[in-house]
Amino acid sequence: MGKLISINEAIDIVLKETNILGTEKVRIINSLGRIIAQDIVSPFDMPPFRRSAMDGYAIKFDDLSFTRIFEIRDEIKAGEVKDIKYEKGKCVLIMTGAKVPEDFDTVVKFEDTEEIFENGERKIRILKEIKRFGNIVERGEDFKKGDVLIKKGSVIDSGYMAIIAYCGIDEVSVYKRPKVGIIATGDEIKKIGEKLREGEIYDCNSYSIYGLVLKYGGEPEILGIAKDDNKSLKSYIEKGLKKDILILSGGVSVGKYDFVVDVFNEIGIEMKFWKVAIKPGKPTFFGKKENCLIFGLPGNPVAVYINFENLVRPAILKMEGANNFERFKVSGILAEDIENKGDRDEFLRVVLKVENGENIVIPYKKQASGIFTSITETNGILFLRKNERIEKGQKVIVEIYK
Amino acid sequence: MGKLISINEAIDIVLKETNILGTEKVRIINSLGRIIAQDIVSPFDMPPFRRSAMDGYAIKFDDLSFTRIFEIRDEIKAGEVKDIKYEKGKCVLIMTGAKVPEDFDTVVKFEDTEEIFENGERKIRILKEIKRFGNIVERGEDFKKGDVLIKKGSVIDSGYMAIIAYCGIDEVSVYKRPKVGIIATGDEIKKIGEKLREGEIYDCNSYSIYGLVLKYGGEPEILGIAKDDNKSLKSYIEKGLKKDILILSGGVSVGKYDFVVDVFNEIGIEMKFWKVAIKPGKPTFFGKKENCLIFGLPGNPVAVYINFENLVRPAILKMEGANNFERFKVSGILAEDIENKGDRDEFLRVVLKVENGENIVIPYKKQASGIFTSITETNGILFLRKNERIEKGQKVIVEIYK
Repeated sequence: MGKLISINEAIDIVLKETNILGTEKVRIINSLGRIIAQDIVSPFDMPPFRRSAMDGYAIKFDDLSFTRIFEIRDEIKAGEVKDIKYEKGKCVLIMTGAKVPEDFDTVVKFEDTEEIFENGERKIRILKEIKRFGNIVERGEDFKKGDVLIKKGSVIDSGYMAIIAYCGIDEVSVYKRPKVGIIATGDEIKKIGEKLREGEIYDCNSYSIYGLVLKYGGEPEILGIAKDDNKSLKSYIEKGLKKDILILSGGVSVGKYDFVVDVFNEIGIEMKFWKVAIKPGKPTFFGKKENCLIFGLPGNPVAVYINFENLVRPAILKMEGANNFERFKVSGILAEDIENKGDRDEFLRVVLKVENGENIVIPYKKQASGIFTSITETNGILFLRKNERIEKGQKVIVEIYK
Repeated sequence: MGKLISINEAIDIVLKETNILGTEKVRIINSLGRIIAQDIVSPFDMPPFRRSAMDGYAIKFDDLSFTRIFEIRDEIKAGEVKDIKYEKGKCVLIMTGAKVPEDFDTVVKFEDTEEIFENGERKIRILKEIKRFGNIVERGEDFKKGDVLIKKGSVIDSGYMAIIAYCGIDEVSVYKRPKVGIIATGDEIKKIGEKLREGEIYDCNSYSIYGLVLKYGGEPEILGIAKDDNKSLKSYIEKGLKKDILILSGGVSVGKYDFVVDVFNEIGIEMKFWKVAIKPGKPTFFGKKENCLIFGLPGNPVAVYINFENLVRPAILKMEGANNFERFKVSGILAEDIENKGDRDEFLRVVLKVENGENIVIPYKKQASGIFTSITETNGILFLRKNERIEKGQKVIVEIYK
């Protein structure tokens, strides 16, 4: 019937069975959130030349030893390159981003000067203390030609989009997004729009799964609601096996298992595990047929959510070629005693927020796996081992999942 | 020429000039990340009936005073409603999610029982200590009919998608997404694909702006690169004024300002401010023409990024009807002394991470506004007032911006 395994064993099995999908090219404007399948190597130094960080006047610093008044002898706009030679006591008006001519070593910004007229000539007087090399960004100060600016497997965010553009690249190689089929199961589950009879509820799990698949970069499709009968379930699953990942919710708990596993067997899905020693979400099936991964999540909405985060998310990220599966972690102070009396490791939903300068971790008051609001009203997950007890005031590490 | 104002004054002016856009209907599967324009009120209790949280056996708890062996008299599947009356010493097999008949008050999960045969009858023996009301979720325990489950102005995430579906709603009212035009300016800026001459660089700011607009839910369009001449700039700006927001990068620093403001004036754009006392990003223009907001950001990529986060983000979120503009904040311990010697408030880019159980805040070593990697290699912003000095080991609050 499948033995009870730990969450880490379960994740290891999932990752072992997951293969990276192929790659495709996308234009930079379509790349946000995609995982890059190539290193981005800088084709030039950044900045590409020694440039002015300010609108101001380029001077030779040593001139300050005898004068604070400079004659303006020329002007360089951004984009212009002028190789102006040094002349004693003369400066060059220069714009932000322009290349500073070799003979000059310091830029004095407009605000630190005043314009004066002396002998009918337009000059400037420097009003403040100036530092040698001030307002000059050296060639290659940020990065150098050949530096790897974005590592293969990184998620392309807006900052990386700028870097790709800076390198003059319009098309990047990214990993394909997994296609994910979603099936709800259960005679009591109704489709939105249908009339509910007593004991029935609308399918909500398919929609949280849909949203989570999108969040992690997959391409979700809701396939429908299978009845608790062999024929209905089989026909939905067969449709779903054309996807890279198939996720079912409901129908995998002890009571229904024999029926579902019969269908899985008939179809040729190989079971890898079925129970994980975690709370919520113990009855969680994972299997494989050819290249399709099959996740059977429990019916409770919280268990669906947490197990998606724990088990499906790593599979999606691995298919997409991600080089980092870690969530953002924050340390905080526990606001009340917590204890896991059960025999399974627990994923407590918590709120982490700053109060009086401290990060406070507040466990959500209702942790039952049917309690929707324990997902919608929280932002973090606190992992609590079986039999573990942590007292109020202790430091804990929370994974931020929103 | 526009006086120097504080960042808070600037944000207040932006918000004052920003109007909420209209609303539209979207199907639930297209709602992820949209801002909801209606309250979602629960049409029923959750759970809608007193239900079993486990696959197991419903019993009357008081029976345990005389027996631990129960005869199984009936079976209730999820979705089935059976009003089974109590009979002394008898239990009902019940599935997760099924309605528990009124006469029963406790569910014993399968794992806590064994099946036995006594006098030819199929019975169960309870193996563990049982709690009264165990494994039963009371009707309305999570929320009640009439409760506001999602407040108008909230961002729809995957958890909220589940709630909307749970309520049986297929179409929700959301705020429209602002259309945002993006223009780069400067003779030295070249389009990807063009050949660079010395002193020229590719347009990267348009792409970080594009990504940021998408991130915050707007609809970006890159309009092109305007030359530093009146005619070119005017024609791009006129195209951009059809959008809800127009963002220019470059061309608003002191040296170029007279030229740009001439064009703005000719076109009839009313200036609201032009300089903000912040580092990076001091020369930042904000104006309005009819319903179009115009942001003129500096040319440096870091200043573009930070000022987008500080000034454009609130405008986009307000147009979209958001009820919360706050970023996620985390408290941490500063890893080294920092000091703002300048005369402007500063937005330091930092890395916040957990080390030995503590949140450590590491200021990025290069804070110049041309240093790309100060954006791509960090995850937080630390606000440092002018003349403020904070010593290593002090607690600081960081805004997480990624």
